[in-house]
Amino acid sequence: MKKILFINPIHTDIFNNSFKEMLNTYKEENTKANIVSLNSNTGPCHLQFHSYEALVMPEIVRRVKQAENEGYDATVIGCFYDTALRASREISEKMVITAPAEASLHIATTLGESVSIIVSEDKCIPEMKENVKKYGFGEKVASFKSVNLKVHEFQKKPEETKNRIESASLSAINNDGADIIVLGCTAEFGMYDKLQEKLGVPVIDSGLAAFKYAESLVELKQKMNWSHSKLRGYKSPPREELKQFRF
Amino acid sequence: MKKILFINPIHTDIFNNSFKEMLNTYKEENTKANIVSLNSNTGPCHLQFHSYEALVMPEIVRRVKQAENEGYDATVIGCFYDTALRASREISEKMVITAPAEASLHIATTLGESVSIIVSEDKCIPEMKENVKKYGFGEKVASFKSVNLKVHEFQKKPEETKNRIESASLSAINNDGADIIVLGCTAEFGMYDKLQEKLGVPVIDSGLAAFKYAESLVELKQKMNWSHSKLRGYKSPPREELKQFRF
Amino acid sequence: MKKILFINPIHTDIFNNSFKEMLNTYKEENTKANIVSLNSNTGPCHLQFHSYEALVMPEIVRRVKQAENEGYDATVIGCFYDTALRASREISEKMVITAPAEASLHIATTLGESVSIIVSEDKCIPEMKENVKKYGFGEKVASFKSVNLKVHEFQKKPEETKNRIESASLSAINNDGADIIVLGCTAEFGMYDKLQEKLGVPVIDSGLAAFKYAESLVELKQKMNWSHSKLRGYKSPPREELKQFRF
Amino acid sequence: MKKILFINPIHTDIFNNSFKEMLNTYKEENTKANIVSLNSNTGPCHLQFHSYEALVMPEIVRRVKQAENEGYDATVIGCFYDTALRASREISEKMVITAPAEASLHIATTLGESVSIIVSEDKCIPEMKENVKKYGFGEKVASFKSVNLKVHEFQKKPEETKNRIESASLSAINNDGADIIVLGCTAEFGMYDKLQEKLGVPVIDSGLAAFKYAESLVELKQKMNWSHSKLRGYKSPPREELKQFRF
Amino acid sequence: MKKILFINPIHTDIFNNSFKEMLNTYKEENTKANIVSLNSNTGPCHLQFHSYEALVMPEIVRRVKQAENEGYDATVIGCFYDTALRASREISEKMVITAPAEASLHIATTLGESVSIIVSEDKCIPEMKENVKKYGFGEKVASFKSVNLKVHEFQKKPEETKNRIESASLSAINNDGADIIVLGCTAEFGMYDKLQEKLGVPVIDSGLAAFKYAESLVELKQKMNWSHSKLRGYKSPPREELKQFRF
Amino acid sequence: MKKILFINPIHTDIFNNSFKEMLNTYKEENTKANIVSLNSNTGPCHLQFHSYEALVMPEIVRRVKQAENEGYDATVIGCFYDTALRASREISEKMVITAPAEASLHIATTLGESVSIIVSEDKCIPEMKENVKKYGFGEKVASFKSVNLKVHEFQKKPEETKNRIESASLSAINNDGADIIVLGCTAEFGMYDKLQEKLGVPVIDSGLAAFKYAESLVELKQKMNWSHSKLRGYKSPPREELKQFRF
Repeated sequence: MKKILFINPIHTDIFNNSFKEMLNTYKEENTKANIVSLNSNTGPCHLQFHSYEALVMPEIVRRVKQAENEGYDATVIGCFYDTALRASREISEKMVITAPAEASLHIATTLGESVSIIVSEDKCIPEMKENVKKYGFGEKVASFKSVNLKVHEFQKKPEETKNRIESASLSAINNDGADIIVLGCTAEFGMYDKLQEKLGVPVIDSGLAAFKYAESLVELKQKMNWSHSKLRGYKSPPREELKQFRF
Repeated sequence: MKKILFINPIHTDIFNNSFKEMLNTYKEENTKANIVSLNSNTGPCHLQFHSYEALVMPEIVRRVKQAENEGYDATVIGCFYDTALRASREISEKMVITAPAEASLHIATTLGESVSIIVSEDKCIPEMKENVKKYGFGEKVASFKSVNLKVHEFQKKPEETKNRIESASLSAINNDGADIIVLGCTAEFGMYDKLQEKLGVPVIDSGLAAFKYAESLVELKQKMNWSHSKLRGYKSPPREELKQFRF
Repeated sequence: MKKILFINPIHTDIFNNSFKEMLNTYKEENTKANIVSLNSNTGPCHLQFHSYEALVMPEIVRRVKQAENEGYDATVIGCFYDTALRASREISEKMVITAPAEASLHIATTLGESVSIIVSEDKCIPEMKENVKKYGFGEKVASFKSVNLKVHEFQKKPEETKNRIESASLSAINNDGADIIVLGCTAEFGMYDKLQEKLGVPVIDSGLAAFKYAESLVELKQKMNWSHSKLRGYKSPPREELKQFRF
Repeated sequence: MKKILFINPIHTDIFNNSFKEMLNTYKEENTKANIVSLNSNTGPCHLQFHSYEALVMPEIVRRVKQAENEGYDATVIGCFYDTALRASREISEKMVITAPAEASLHIATTLGESVSIIVSEDKCIPEMKENVKKYGFGEKVASFKSVNLKVHEFQKKPEETKNRIESASLSAINNDGADIIVLGCTAEFGMYDKLQEKLGVPVIDSGLAAFKYAESLVELKQKMNWSHSKLRGYKSPPREELKQFRF
Repeated sequence: MKKILFINPIHTDIFNNSFKEMLNTYKEENTKANIVSLNSNTGPCHLQFHSYEALVMPEIVRRVKQAENEGYDATVIGCFYDTALRASREISEKMVITAPAEASLHIATTLGESVSIIVSEDKCIPEMKENVKKYGFGEKVASFKSVNLKVHEFQKKPEETKNRIESASLSAINNDGADIIVLGCTAEFGMYDKLQEKLGVPVIDSGLAAFKYAESLVELKQKMNWSHSKLRGYKSPPREELKQFRF
Repeated sequence: MKKILFINPIHTDIFNNSFKEMLNTYKEENTKANIVSLNSNTGPCHLQFHSYEALVMPEIVRRVKQAENEGYDATVIGCFYDTALRASREISEKMVITAPAEASLHIATTLGESVSIIVSEDKCIPEMKENVKKYGFGEKVASFKSVNLKVHEFQKKPEETKNRIESASLSAINNDGADIIVLGCTAEFGMYDKLQEKLGVPVIDSGLAAFKYAESLVELKQKMNWSHSKLRGYKSPPREELKQFRF
């Protein structure tokens, strides 16, 4: 069995039921998917701002470590900034970890040759562009396209959202040379399939991509014991030291 | 069910039984794995030379197309040069295709931060280095290490082979900063696990990696219909034209 | 004397007379230029598709090796994908080999500072872009411009073709910063000179460029014995082994 | 007057007196330098681990925002990982922010042509290398050299430390082509001047570099009103929203 | 005290009074700023052409060396091509040297994340783009925008100039993703502040930036003795040899 | 006929006879080769220092322009720094210009896959490395190797020189993966052929390479009128303006 935790690294559970349903629809038969938000009462409900990412970082690494202690095989950090990805891989000793940007870019560059990423606001682009380059995909990304909607507007105005994403995608395909689209915010969920049919190119839902990528990483772990290298960058802190910080 | 064909793009079936066994050991429960070599009588038994790659290219794309007609969900082209990968994705209309270098590098750069690739001979390095950069992983690969063995020597001298791979890997880890090892020839099969245990870092068998990556691509295809974009580079030739060439 | 073979790696000789005339017009006095197509009866008449490139690869390397045996000093592989270039250099032991993309980019980056490449269809761009980067000219190429014509339409509709190329070139110069144009398909022959006059920037006919570059490589070979390094990537297969494959 | 806060983003004030003294020695006449650590009782005393960086991120951005409210003109985040640099620039509305890696690399690439960075442990290199590339200095850094000492050993074993740094620097100069050295951990303070004299090349103390760079940024702010762009990546969250998180 | 010489590397002193005023307005209290042009009678009055840069190179390095002999602490070479920067650092033994492109790009990439450079004519872009990449900032520069004005038109038609710069800047911000503007010609002086106010993003006057950067480099030199490395690329010629060339 | 001028941009004619002989040995039949040094009495006899390059820049562009007026078809600037290459192309209206680093790298990357450059002193490497990247060959150059000899020692100690170059080349081949050698100083002339025979890889004499490359550029000019683009970076100054500077 594969036990996978999807952490919605925000202080609201508003998306959790829909996400749970989505994960259960698309999961492998023997996967047990769970989804949690951050549970303290006051904290950001979205991570559009990098200072909000900073605020939730300790909660993410603590929740990741707790997941490992609870016996999860993998954790997904559910934000397209891939917040705290390296720290989470470091704190975890055996579990595999992934996140939406990393996962959807590995998938998209395998399936297509030129990716366009549809984001909520221009604000997001600098950090995301940095991540894209960091992962090695700088020359594979044709463009970022902003739809100028806040994270919480996507699901509130689904028609408007779909129209804007479609129009941004068409521009990416026709003007920027993209042959594959990545939805660069996990809150753009529930929309990829119709759009994919309409556009005739793969449209990657990044949250779903991260979850499916996690399943495949668990498979590699369980069968071949291929997991994160613990030699250098991902070497975990000593347990005794960690205990001082209530891990 | 996932039907996957592993093409050993060489004119010998000497490795096929061992490969079949390996794939059956590591496959998902509902995967049906098959392995074939190229079946004409005269042709290269290894692809160390790029002119040999050229010689087998038509056979590869024909075998790939045949696999699609036979109902396979995915094909793996089993050589670390990833010979004819783009052409194979083009000729196939629905099937997903992958190959060892691509697959093992996507996996290795997810699991570690600095990869070393252990190859058979120096001769291989220029084309492989080119592929590594093409995929976007140029800055993730710390070094190529050659063990100076021909492809068919690996399985004939297993002890010598293991010793050389181990020694090259240790040098990569200690001198080049590698934290993960990729075995850069599919003929280095059957060796990763012991080595992994000894070195304490993940050691990726590239043929096996390609097969497992194919399983995960089929999963994405079957669940979300994410498959190779057919918009531009991978657009298939018109069927009528193909018929002229006996496809 | 310099004996140079121009291989039109397609199964039609429709362009050969015009090419022969072009080569004879522009060749050095002491060059003997010959042009051949692939001679089997069924095979692609154009290489727009990468699977077609795969189909003709063995014929290319065999024709290249035959050319060496016939005493040619150089061979040009006449397609802007530079199909089988590395394999051809490997199979050949003494002859120099070049191809249109490589040759025209070396020339164009010496003559100008920002190149635009005019291609037949968008379909071609991914592989060509990959080649451009592979040769080191990624940052010298301002843009690819597609004229949306199939390879065999160029010579059938010469006026339409010239108009589209001119218009694409003007856009490259005015919007993309190009100061030099490369005609990124050998079938765009017979057009560069008028266009060059009109645009006021150099316009490189890529087939012609490859032929002239071959002449200069032969010169280097004959005078200084500078030829392809046979140490690693271009090391030829052992002759005995080659004989098994009817070389 | 320039009011500058140096945040030692760790839960110990063990270095603060020495740092204060250093800053006061090297500051401009009209600069008022202050230094603080993180003040909660339990938390990491070093940031060697990326999960420790994650733990202190909220404290950093809160302390930065507090500094702005207290009227500081600039803040330095005193760790060579440049932890939370983007988030801190975002949360601050008027203050300028810098950090040791950024500052010392801007300075070193102005003063020399090939930089070597002396770090405490191999563990640090992957994240630091990522930052170096992110800032644009990937091709300016000749090498990272590890002295295999933990952060808190530097000041406890000053002689051993100096010897190891000198020996690593010599190797960088002689083998890697470095012509300038950066001390890639703020805890390597108090050592640059003697080493500089001995080696005959500039040796940049990165904490000191960040402080002096901050002074120059304040100068630019006060004279020309050149400060962090608040248009996109560094745009601050809305004040009302921030209030909910006790800023 | 900091003695800084600003060399206007042209054969006219038409800008010198305005520059002097500008430097005195923005300098640190204890800085003594001086400005000189090249003093021979016949020579270029602008450096738009690279052959004009070549013509003034000896005068620049001679003036730089003279400045060092006169006791200056720093010299600024006042042209956005950063003409003779490396040679000037080499000839100088103790003085620090900087120039507008280098200085404004270090500053701009610290303050913003995506820079646009407003230049006089398209002609300038190739060499400037080359310099941008050379300094490591290739991926930080969103675009070059030309206002199609000659160097000496800027100050003659101030309104027209301001309008064109504003319009180019707006296009850079809205279409190219720029969040910071650099005025890529020192003759665009006297315009940054109004524009900055209007656009709401930092606008860097590159001549001024170079002067202020020089002040900060002198500070580093005076306090920590951090200066140009004299080990390799910047190693000065032997004094005896120099004497032969009347230095 | 092809009239080519080789400018030895130094104030000594000590190499000219040998160079003349070399050019006449290797030239095409219908080439007329001439060689000149700079003719004023006091000036550098070598360009090891970048300030010396600066000193001779006006003389180079003036000599280049004079060559054009004298009816030369091409000029070679004979120093591996490719001093004043862009300025020379700009000042010339019809002539083609090349230089040793550019020419030998275009040739070497066509003939081999991984180049090592043998230079006189470490001092030269930073500027040369910069040029290599500028031309696009950064990833094709495996290493720079210094033989620690001054420019004028090469011909004075030919045996010592050959031994050092051979030993540096062997190290490049065996340790750095080079499969082709470039002699990165024109004063290393007269040595390539023996070395080439001994090493079994092409050894490119860079002065000779530039001369032969010039011949091929003239060929392109004479036959197809392909010459330097005069649209932007290489646009010549207005003739009237030039007259003021005694051109």
